[in-house]
Amino acid sequence: MPYELFYWPGIQGRGEFVRLALEEAGAGYIDVARGHGPGRGVEAMTALMGVRPLAPFAPPFLRDGDVVVSHVANILAFLGPKLGLAPQDEALRLHAHGLQLTIADFVAEVHDTHHPIAAELYYEDQTAEAKLRAKAFLDHRVPKYFGYFERALEANSAGPAYAVGDGLTTVDLSLFQLWAGMGYAFPRAFADARDRWPHLAALAAAVARRPNVARYLASERRLPFNEQGIFRHYPELDQPAKHGF
Amino acid sequence: MPYELFYWPGIQGRGEFVRLALEEAGAGYIDVARGHGPGRGVEAMTALMGVRPLAPFAPPFLRDGDVVVSHVANILAFLGPKLGLAPQDEALRLHAHGLQLTIADFVAEVHDTHHPIAAELYYEDQTAEAKLRAKAFLDHRVPKYFGYFERALEANSAGPAYAVGDGLTTVDLSLFQLWAGMGYAFPRAFADARDRWPHLAALAAAVARRPNVARYLASERRLPFNEQGIFRHYPELDQPAKHGF
Repeated sequence: MPYELFYWPGIQGRGEFVRLALEEAGAGYIDVARGHGPGRGVEAMTALMGVRPLAPFAPPFLRDGDVVVSHVANILAFLGPKLGLAPQDEALRLHAHGLQLTIADFVAEVHDTHHPIAAELYYEDQTAEAKLRAKAFLDHRVPKYFGYFERALEANSAGPAYAVGDGLTTVDLSLFQLWAGMGYAFPRAFADARDRWPHLAALAAAVARRPNVARYLASERRLPFNEQGIFRHYPELDQPAKHGF
Repeated sequence: MPYELFYWPGIQGRGEFVRLALEEAGAGYIDVARGHGPGRGVEAMTALMGVRPLAPFAPPFLRDGDVVVSHVANILAFLGPKLGLAPQDEALRLHAHGLQLTIADFVAEVHDTHHPIAAELYYEDQTAEAKLRAKAFLDHRVPKYFGYFERALEANSAGPAYAVGDGLTTVDLSLFQLWAGMGYAFPRAFADARDRWPHLAALAAAVARRPNVARYLASERRLPFNEQGIFRHYPELDQPAKHGF
């Protein structure tokens, strides 16, 4: 039975981290809210959110038979071993989950660059604050996070080709997505990213070349980045960061 | 060998969610950064953050022998089964982790009520924006999150005494901490919380009465809430929420 992924149609958003894992593994899955007909579409997703017990707080969530798993990192910790995208060793698996949660925190901070005051308001109603927050994000938070991820690659005793251990994990796929998203949302600030974080750049390029990922990225299943998702390109928020980033 | 908890001394902060689990279980642990002498203190914590591989991104993190676990939800997923504070059933355990991650998201939003623009700036430099964000938080986000947690208690087929299954888990302890923190930070907005979310109120009271928790709360190990932590009481951010909250 295929996995059922529940996420908003029309955006990559947080669902994309799960899609990338399913696509890399060649796993059968249904992107429920993007479908049509009985049991498909946004209505099917929101209906399931009301089902008790075990109702998720928000998309994305995944259904595998009777099991419902919510939150990106939780979903990936659940799927990773099943898809061959998790380390075997317990200490490494805990480390991978920690990295995945750090990635989740970064994603929340990216979101708040365009919604620093309220998710319920339009971007246009908080642009002034968004400029301030985006500047602090580019000056301080991006170097902190990306510097950390770069060091995680450097520190991998199996080499910098993967974030954890000697094989591809969901963390690598998610780091690719951060890289792609930053390049889309902040092309000026991210212009010299390749020089700044070379291991991350190489990892992102290697992930994009993997046959299943490349096929996915070229397909219509890969939604384009847009200004409804997490990574949004608002030129007024994008600026060369302090110290040349 | 006792667990070693690494977190900033002087605040409850995110470390408190871990402390509550260790204290409830009566587990031996060392609060490393609050200690003195060799291998203790903030220096010992920051030194460990530089150790490669498996360095954590930020406190809190936990060391158990050779294993280092970072992020509150990851730590609690690791500790829960060892401390008897996790459900046995896999579906329930995944649900508990999802709830724990929802709690983590709420904590990040609480933090951003006083730091909506930049963690690197003082509160005093972003008070105007903090007022806007706090209002949106109290009007929209708190009802959304607490309404969800209340429904999770209602929906528990074993009854509303616990969030997941028929026994105490880390989720219940964490919900107590959210309840206590909101009462401290936003006493006006939270004044009628007991009427609004009665199951949560009962849960928080029941947790506070548990012998080990009560002993801990009365001890000097329980740091008081203060204006360096996550839950800060700034009267200008506290206001009766829309619709009487």
